[in-house]
Amino acid sequence: MSTKKYVYLFHEGNAQMRALLGGKGANLAEMANMSLPVPPGFTITTEACLAYYASNGQFPEGLDAQIKPALAVIEAATGKKFGDPVNPLLVSVRSGAQASMPGMMDTVLNLGLNSETVQALATATQNERFALDSYRRFIHMFSNVVLELSKDDFEDLLSAIKRKQGIHFDSELSVDSLNKVIQEYKALVKRLTGKDFPEDPQDQLHEAILAVFRSWNNDRAIFYRKNNNIPDDWGTAVNVQSMVFGNMGDDSGTGVAFTRSPSTGEKALFGEYLMNAQGEDVVAGIRTPLPISSLAQDSPEIYQQFLQISSDLEAHYHDMQDIEFTIEKKKLYMLQTRNGKRTAAASIKVAVDQYHEGLITKEEAISRIEPGQLDQLLHRRIDDKAKLEVIAKGLPASPGAASGQIVLDVDEAERRGNAGEPVLLIRPETTPDDIHGIMAAQGVLTIHGGMTSHAAVVARHMGKPCVCGCESLRIDNTKREIVVSGLRFKEGDSLSIDGATGQVIKGEVPMIDPELSDEFKELLTWADEIRRLQVRANADNPVDAQKARDFGAQGIGLCRTEHMFMDPARIPIVQEMILSQSLEERKVALAKLLPMQEEDFYGILKAMSGWPVIIRLLDPPLHEFLPRAEDLLVEVTRLKVTGDNPEELRSKERLLGKVKGLMESNPMLGHRGCRLAITYPEIYAMQVQAIFQASARLVKEGIEIRPEVMIPLVIHVNELAKLRKLTEETAEKVMQENGVHFPFEVGTMIEVPRAALTADEIAEVADFFSFGTNDLTQTIFGFSRDDAESKFLKDYLNQKILPVNPFAVLDRGGVGKIMRLASELGRSKNKNLGIGICGEHGGEASSIEFCHIIGLDYVSCSPFRVPLARLAAAQAAINQR
Amino acid sequence: MSTKKYVYLFHEGNAQMRALLGGKGANLAEMANMSLPVPPGFTITTEACLAYYASNGQFPEGLDAQIKPALAVIEAATGKKFGDPVNPLLVSVRSGAQASMPGMMDTVLNLGLNSETVQALATATQNERFALDSYRRFIHMFSNVVLELSKDDFEDLLSAIKRKQGIHFDSELSVDSLNKVIQEYKALVKRLTGKDFPEDPQDQLHEAILAVFRSWNNDRAIFYRKNNNIPDDWGTAVNVQSMVFGNMGDDSGTGVAFTRSPSTGEKALFGEYLMNAQGEDVVAGIRTPLPISSLAQDSPEIYQQFLQISSDLEAHYHDMQDIEFTIEKKKLYMLQTRNGKRTAAASIKVAVDQYHEGLITKEEAISRIEPGQLDQLLHRRIDDKAKLEVIAKGLPASPGAASGQIVLDVDEAERRGNAGEPVLLIRPETTPDDIHGIMAAQGVLTIHGGMTSHAAVVARHMGKPCVCGCESLRIDNTKREIVVSGLRFKEGDSLSIDGATGQVIKGEVPMIDPELSDEFKELLTWADEIRRLQVRANADNPVDAQKARDFGAQGIGLCRTEHMFMDPARIPIVQEMILSQSLEERKVALAKLLPMQEEDFYGILKAMSGWPVIIRLLDPPLHEFLPRAEDLLVEVTRLKVTGDNPEELRSKERLLGKVKGLMESNPMLGHRGCRLAITYPEIYAMQVQAIFQASARLVKEGIEIRPEVMIPLVIHVNELAKLRKLTEETAEKVMQENGVHFPFEVGTMIEVPRAALTADEIAEVADFFSFGTNDLTQTIFGFSRDDAESKFLKDYLNQKILPVNPFAVLDRGGVGKIMRLASELGRSKNKNLGIGICGEHGGEASSIEFCHIIGLDYVSCSPFRVPLARLAAAQAAINQR
Repeated sequence: MSTKKYVYLFHEGNAQMRALLGGKGANLAEMANMSLPVPPGFTITTEACLAYYASNGQFPEGLDAQIKPALAVIEAATGKKFGDPVNPLLVSVRSGAQASMPGMMDTVLNLGLNSETVQALATATQNERFALDSYRRFIHMFSNVVLELSKDDFEDLLSAIKRKQGIHFDSELSVDSLNKVIQEYKALVKRLTGKDFPEDPQDQLHEAILAVFRSWNNDRAIFYRKNNNIPDDWGTAVNVQSMVFGNMGDDSGTGVAFTRSPSTGEKALFGEYLMNAQGEDVVAGIRTPLPISSLAQDSPEIYQQFLQISSDLEAHYHDMQDIEFTIEKKKLYMLQTRNGKRTAAASIKVAVDQYHEGLITKEEAISRIEPGQLDQLLHRRIDDKAKLEVIAKGLPASPGAASGQIVLDVDEAERRGNAGEPVLLIRPETTPDDIHGIMAAQGVLTIHGGMTSHAAVVARHMGKPCVCGCESLRIDNTKREIVVSGLRFKEGDSLSIDGATGQVIKGEVPMIDPELSDEFKELLTWADEIRRLQVRANADNPVDAQKARDFGAQGIGLCRTEHMFMDPARIPIVQEMILSQSLEERKVALAKLLPMQEEDFYGILKAMSGWPVIIRLLDPPLHEFLPRAEDLLVEVTRLKVTGDNPEELRSKERLLGKVKGLMESNPMLGHRGCRLAITYPEIYAMQVQAIFQASARLVKEGIEIRPEVMIPLVIHVNELAKLRKLTEETAEKVMQENGVHFPFEVGTMIEVPRAALTADEIAEVADFFSFGTNDLTQTIFGFSRDDAESKFLKDYLNQKILPVNPFAVLDRGGVGKIMRLASELGRSKNKNLGIGICGEHGGEASSIEFCHIIGLDYVSCSPFRVPLARLAAAQAAINQR
Repeated sequence: MSTKKYVYLFHEGNAQMRALLGGKGANLAEMANMSLPVPPGFTITTEACLAYYASNGQFPEGLDAQIKPALAVIEAATGKKFGDPVNPLLVSVRSGAQASMPGMMDTVLNLGLNSETVQALATATQNERFALDSYRRFIHMFSNVVLELSKDDFEDLLSAIKRKQGIHFDSELSVDSLNKVIQEYKALVKRLTGKDFPEDPQDQLHEAILAVFRSWNNDRAIFYRKNNNIPDDWGTAVNVQSMVFGNMGDDSGTGVAFTRSPSTGEKALFGEYLMNAQGEDVVAGIRTPLPISSLAQDSPEIYQQFLQISSDLEAHYHDMQDIEFTIEKKKLYMLQTRNGKRTAAASIKVAVDQYHEGLITKEEAISRIEPGQLDQLLHRRIDDKAKLEVIAKGLPASPGAASGQIVLDVDEAERRGNAGEPVLLIRPETTPDDIHGIMAAQGVLTIHGGMTSHAAVVARHMGKPCVCGCESLRIDNTKREIVVSGLRFKEGDSLSIDGATGQVIKGEVPMIDPELSDEFKELLTWADEIRRLQVRANADNPVDAQKARDFGAQGIGLCRTEHMFMDPARIPIVQEMILSQSLEERKVALAKLLPMQEEDFYGILKAMSGWPVIIRLLDPPLHEFLPRAEDLLVEVTRLKVTGDNPEELRSKERLLGKVKGLMESNPMLGHRGCRLAITYPEIYAMQVQAIFQASARLVKEGIEIRPEVMIPLVIHVNELAKLRKLTEETAEKVMQENGVHFPFEVGTMIEVPRAALTADEIAEVADFFSFGTNDLTQTIFGFSRDDAESKFLKDYLNQKILPVNPFAVLDRGGVGKIMRLASELGRSKNKNLGIGICGEHGGEASSIEFCHIIGLDYVSCSPFRVPLARLAAAQAAINQR
């Protein structure tokens, strides 16, 4: 059996071989091939790591035989020999996976030292202290990483010796002390493992490689991969490289630099360095590093060389680089380069600048931006420089940050918020009844509920910061306090939340306002040239509609009418309508709502003049507009037991009876959407009359309008046919009465599987489809989203039963499959059918890409996500070319 | 434009032309072509009726021109002329749709009479009284049916004249009185309509035909069609036939006969007749008709002729006939024949007898049986002869009848039921907690809930009578009474229910026991020869398993394990398990359940030795095993207000907290099914251990077993893969520990759309699929079945948005479409995949047919429905050949 090639010398690899060599190895190879000063070395492939796991932890067969000649090449290049008692070669052994996983896996430096070679190193460097210090560090690191001994024991021992010697810093250790440390370290290893510390450099290397393989599956690496969606089966490569030392004296040093600012994107070298130091010293923060610009004064030649290399690397990689370097006795060595991580703002500026510099194309510039990162730019956020006292963490439900005084009551939040006070609404969870309080608050914090709970959805829609499911928080309603992490906060105390991270922070924090930079705007115009998908917004009122237009929305894809019903001035009329005993009574209440609805639609259609506005008729079950049965039950029981107020008892009992009569086992699957209109057609009749009366007025005013009526929760063509007829007849009547003509369309949500499965039939009476992927995900998965996110979805994600939360990222295998089917069925019977999506997925990049792939016409998302959607739509178009 | 052929003389039609000529017209044509003595006539087609509706009630163009020559043919055949003042032809005008709709539409007799022709009739028949009486009846009928005047006015007028004349019966009316009646009738018509009663027979005919067309859409016809699933767009035909008179004297008469007994199927002529009478006299019940056998004495020749015709008709139609005849002056006329309606028992006996008589094939015998009717035979039912005092009506939720003493409390129902008292459990609704009470009761009556409410499902499953949703009933818990129709019944009073009709009956009623007759058994053996689908049963215990075997089940398709958890002896342990704070605590509780579950499975596997037993692991959400939050909330509030018992308050509050923590917004879409096992694998681990320990014991006892483990609510292959591994490892361990080997399979429910959509992936780790069409219907429609049936489904059925209740009859367009897709996907990746259905649709004929069409391997239904399923499966095989 011929063995796989497991070992690649640097000059055998290149940047394209990330999967096999890991990011670090591939880039070392690329730099070596660019003839940059890279210390010689080789990379053991990720396939070797996988072979290690496949064989239950055996050192891969044939690997040793490939390492030997590779080592020989390093020896030849450096003129040193591994384990040589005179001129020993020392190496570093570092992990390096396909994706960057900073600090997650293990590294061993100075490998090859033992009682003999340490003396040779002392002689060769004429620096005994340096050699002993290197050996001390090596034993410490090897013991921890390879032998899996606790760091603490070694640090305790070192501290004891420093105490005895009366010094504070490691660098003050004398040669004697260092010898003593080494001796005691070795004794400690013997005591803890029962074995001597390995002297043979070959054994050391062998064990270190195994340790790096093992570190792929340490807890923090697993955790990191889960949070960053990195597959578990990639494995890590191992880089073995000859050591260079930045701590060989004042003509040595080490540093890190970015070719452009990772914070702002500004084009200039950004970085720091420290002379006579190793990387870990920089990290330890004992000495303050100098800005890279100082190097121009300190070592102008090296600085010029580094400047040139940086510029070459950017030109070579066509992207901003994050570079590590070491200076050993006035000689510059490159230890790593990679595409630099950056803020959203920097990301945009770098991309746009690089386009203008001719480095990249518009398409490349667009593809450079991670859409998920844009949230940072589109919301008020906490100043990066602020010191935060984080007291709890919940789910990052709606981005942006908010500070305000704690309010536990919705009505009070409304009162105080409308009075201009900044308030933070804290609730166990929210219901549609709470919307006025949410609207008036700076932000919302809930104890229960997931990323798609009511609070989260409403808050995201309003662009209002929200942290949900902060289960460690408790509300003490008696004392009007909240309790968290042992601290108590009274109503009126200040608190802050960061909806992008889920953090709950004590007190007020400094904020930064959002803005679209010129570069961002320019980038979006390029995106608009490239994308095929239209981007619309979900907006329920003229203010949101205007916001959506400002962000570039091409119309409204979802205008929900239930929020209009929730207005405190209207809710009594809505309740009167719901509790009506007869059609006549109900019509009286509806007649009162009609002029209000007309005003709503007038405002929105006007704000969106010339653009389509899809208005969804009433969707939620009616009991959502009534008081909660639980509250009534408590009240009725109390009144019964006390006998206080028999009249109130009777009235509350009656109301409870009605609320119970409307209650449902599974309201999500209940009497809502167009089912309401099958039972009570007069409700939709009022709504379409309001839409068309508003339309008639606008037409008379010379304003161009494009109203589109959307029927929710359709499961059968007969529903849509019936309600389309109702709509058309109403439109006809209003046009005749007003002597005007206006265009309109009638379409349907596709949000229940049966609608998708019978989309061909439904398309024959629909002008457009809009996929309601929130509900579709619920019904396709059989997941009630609140229940799922609070009860079991985390188990599904932790155990990788599901790769991602399907409420956040559209599930292509199930939901997507039926969307594709529905689109094909629908277009097969109605070639003019417009198809879009208005679920929350319409503002998520991967989901937008899928919408592009299956040929939808538009996505619709909250106004704040419109720029993201424009970009993601362009990326999809580029990716799918 | 050439006109359609709207008019068919009888000899132009035949029995196959039902759609065009209606059932009556087609059979009159068939009889005419058999040269039977049918009074001549013609049929106006259903297409004419549809043309009438299409033109908004215009008399179809060209119809008049076709009626004239047809009338001429009748005139020629009878030697009479329509409207002739000497020898007038009188005709009947009758409706007749494709499907029999007895009494739903209108008929006019004696048409053609006017002031002139009535004299001619008197002369021709030498019976002035007869002629006037016929005219009087005609005016009455025409005024009511055609002129749409109220019957009452005419009857009042007639009564007044009878009163004045001092007589009781119409037949006592003198010639003078009849003349007076006619005069006053005409005056009444003039007064009410402002027009004279039409004299022109052509006008009469014209108007009568329009009236029959109209009657297709009268309220009772619409209602009947809805209840019998007859399409609204069929229309009715109109039969115009020369009159024959059974009331011309003692040598005339009229009667109805069945060629076999419609009650028992016995082979003998069954019927009644009355001399000197018209059909309506028989119906009026004024004189008692004679048994048809008397005719043998009275008119032996006519009897022999009738006997021969009956026998010919049966031989011709290959089915039992329901025949109407009239004797006019010793001449026999056939007025109608049709396949006779019959009881289920008769249906079976006739079919089996006719096969043995060589009249029909086995296939025809099988196809003759309406599977839905079989329910009558498989349950104890109320004696047909009993006089019932029906006090209320609910939904016929589970067939069979029960009498018992009223019990309002579940535990008391259990206590008294187990003590041997017959009790009827009456509840507002039931929950899984109530199962022990239901089990011990004779039957269940609930105020709320639909056909698929918990009570209904459980009761059907147990074969226990149940009436649900009896909203007119009220429970007065204070007085321990129920109130219904103004009556009060105390606990302990006797009441009966008929689960096949929904009737609630005062007191006890006589019952008839179910039995499979020899003919039924014989028929089922033929069905077994023909069907391809296997039939299994849903059964949870050895008793049901045995019942299922007795009815011919080929294994168990669904053994639910949650009912085992509900056992009163176990529920405290189950609650202990649920309320556990740690894995260890939970394992302690599970260890107590293990031996109990082992006994359950031991019993069932043993009872089903040699046959497959599919055991579904725990499915419902855990809160179903705990007390209801609502009850706890009331209790906690009471304790808070009274301050009575602080310790109990604290404990109840704790419990309420836990129950609330488990509560879900939409439990149907919540933490249940295999989701429980993703969070708590130890629960399923206990269950599979119990299954396999029982298996090992049985193998050691030499008993052949075929356990199959079914994982519910799968949505992703990863769930099944994980739980399959758990199952296989447990089986392996048990086999090793016991030193035995047993076969087993692992499969999954397909009951959530995502499972169906990804069936190809899932099939790779499944041995079998079982479609859970109850849940699949819920998720595909987005219908919570309880909510739908109690809240809005009736509107959908009334308005024909949906053709049928999809929980009763499988929805082929949506649910069926995805089942077909899932079957194809599944088999594409696993050609040995077994596929069945275990939802309630598995016991419904149309659904079974669909399962046959898409190639499933088996259906599984409640034991009581197994015979029905065997028959329906055979019918499906026959229909699809």
